Amino acid sequence: MASETTAGLAGVVAGRTAIATVGKEGKGLTYRGYSINDLAGQATFEEVAFLLIYGRLPTESELSDYQEALRGQRSLPGPLKTVLEQIPASAHPMDVMRTGCSALGALEPEGKGRDQTAVANRLTACFSSLLLYWHHLHASGRRIDTASDEGSTAGHFLRLLHGKKPDELKRRAVDVSLILYAEHEFNASTFAARTIISTLPDFYSAVTGAIGALRGPLHGGANEAAMALIERFSAPDEAEKGILGMLAAKQLIMGFGHRVYKISDPRSDVIKAWSKKLAEAAGDERLYPVSERIERVMWREKRLFPNLDFYSATAYHLCGIPTPMFTPLFVVSRISGWSAHIIEQRGDNRLIRPTAEYVGPEPRPFVPISQR
Amino acid sequence: MASETTAGLAGVVAGRTAIATVGKEGKGLTYRGYSINDLAGQATFEEVAFLLIYGRLPTESELSDYQEALRGQRSLPGPLKTVLEQIPASAHPMDVMRTGCSALGALEPEGKGRDQTAVANRLTACFSSLLLYWHHLHASGRRIDTASDEGSTAGHFLRLLHGKKPDELKRRAVDVSLILYAEHEFNASTFAARTIISTLPDFYSAVTGAIGALRGPLHGGANEAAMALIERFSAPDEAEKGILGMLAAKQLIMGFGHRVYKISDPRSDVIKAWSKKLAEAAGDERLYPVSERIERVMWREKRLFPNLDFYSATAYHLCGIPTPMFTPLFVVSRISGWSAHIIEQRGDNRLIRPTAEYVGPEPRPFVPISQR
Repeated sequence: MASETTAGLAGVVAGRTAIATVGKEGKGLTYRGYSINDLAGQATFEEVAFLLIYGRLPTESELSDYQEALRGQRSLPGPLKTVLEQIPASAHPMDVMRTGCSALGALEPEGKGRDQTAVANRLTACFSSLLLYWHHLHASGRRIDTASDEGSTAGHFLRLLHGKKPDELKRRAVDVSLILYAEHEFNASTFAARTIISTLPDFYSAVTGAIGALRGPLHGGANEAAMALIERFSAPDEAEKGILGMLAAKQLIMGFGHRVYKISDPRSDVIKAWSKKLAEAAGDERLYPVSERIERVMWREKRLFPNLDFYSATAYHLCGIPTPMFTPLFVVSRISGWSAHIIEQRGDNRLIRPTAEYVGPEPRPFVPISQR
Repeated sequence: MASETTAGLAGVVAGRTAIATVGKEGKGLTYRGYSINDLAGQATFEEVAFLLIYGRLPTESELSDYQEALRGQRSLPGPLKTVLEQIPASAHPMDVMRTGCSALGALEPEGKGRDQTAVANRLTACFSSLLLYWHHLHASGRRIDTASDEGSTAGHFLRLLHGKKPDELKRRAVDVSLILYAEHEFNASTFAARTIISTLPDFYSAVTGAIGALRGPLHGGANEAAMALIERFSAPDEAEKGILGMLAAKQLIMGFGHRVYKISDPRSDVIKAWSKKLAEAAGDERLYPVSERIERVMWREKRLFPNLDFYSATAYHLCGIPTPMFTPLFVVSRISGWSAHIIEQRGDNRLIRPTAEYVGPEPRPFVPISQR
């Protein structure tokens, strides 16, 4: 029976992983055994992506080679640019990511001369490029050159977005957010990627599906929904009143609680500290205080804690990132975790094919159309 | 623990469905309660697609309206044609389906004025068109008009493929195969679609992901692999020898056995009969006898029965369909089942987010890069 405990597969073990611990008692959140706090404090996103995909931290020369490889793959092939040019300005940016990924899979297929890590690296290198190529085409009619000499993925994203050398505080804030968003065990998009790859199609098919899953407001779309909420209020007292009203009307408040975490999201404190730092640097007296008040009210009223998405919203906003790019930026990061899971699933594959409780009509006789 | 019983979620109930019975004792395979044999014998694919999506068999006037609606949506928007033109001749046709579906989602988004059944119908109407537009562009340089006045999806596909009024025996054979392929409960692509839609993104995201899952040889790709196998042999005795050799070498033989079915696939007998009928009409003395012999050897040696994919291969081949189009044709059919499941999942949604058994390294101290 699809009882309370199995609906949505909550708590059901769907496979093994050596990549991350989410909600494993006494372990905190680790990537390949390293605590998320250590990684966010001492590593760069590229070190973390390497760790996830290759299974160990890179040496200095490995990291330098890896960064060089990413830097060299930020340009887009002509046909992909043409594809992106067909997508209207009104489209959801996640449609751009999904279509761009799928089209790249047709143009640069996995196979001879391009193995799975090569595909993972290519996507890591060029997801920012394809989003911002499309963005600038519609924002200003410019067909930008998506190459950049920025050493980091965060820097590359901000450089293309703003067209200038990024401020280091903002660059590192985005870098840290990419670390926090990189991997999270069997979340819906990763599980979708594993389900897809379990039939043994190409790498891009799994990533394209994962992008679709990430798009939903119950997953990656939550940081955009959190921003929309925070922006509605101009001061903490107004926010408190507004949230109480929404709770009374039983409205869903995005950016709080988590399927697996029950007490707190270990990533939230890290991004909250960055959000505060960015607010201070910007002289912001609105977004951060409003966010903090919403957090306090949600805990007092519902015992719900902020998840990673909540303070990421303010942090991204303070870095000058438009709200519709929040979820695409999640893709720029999570491609590393998805890739690690696709590689892991392939390494010990079994087709993911559950069964269902049948609750439909009993067998009944067919009625020919003339007698209906 | 991810024991034998949960690896790949085999036998795990992942939710409820009222759409199909697969492997439910005493029920056979039914769509919304109607036996697959009755549907394949007495209904058309459009009746079945309507049944799956709207939940009941259409009346004569509903069916006529539905067919009319599909007929009216076979043309492709200009930007989608441009996208398809970017995909090289060497691409996997499933990349064309996946990219075309994703791009259409950006051009004709779900939302105001276009609800979920409208999207389902649009995709049902134009999947054949987008595949064959791309196909003919590369095969002969022609940009074909993808409208046709064929009343059925099967007829539309064959008309565009061969550029002439289809032979009725072949048309009905394809029609029946579309009925058989339309729906199959929580198979990997449908389950991927449900996982994706459970985060509440748009309809196209779920279908795009499902196409990726269908592409793999452990799922939809199996009928292509079956054809490649059958074509290797010019006579039954040679086939027997070849299969015995493959079994001795422990090679996987596609088109046999099934995750859920243990004794037989109820769809196989139906398509086998059509395969025989087509072989007789074509005077074929090779493919069908070779297929039958492979079936006999697989049962005698391994107690494995043919699944739907095995005789579909011969049937499609005898209808003049190139092997690389077998899996895309599966998409043309399965869009109906996927749509029914997406609508059902949305109707009683819970985020699909399982958990994993952690088998990775214990928490370990971070080592700064200079000390690695």
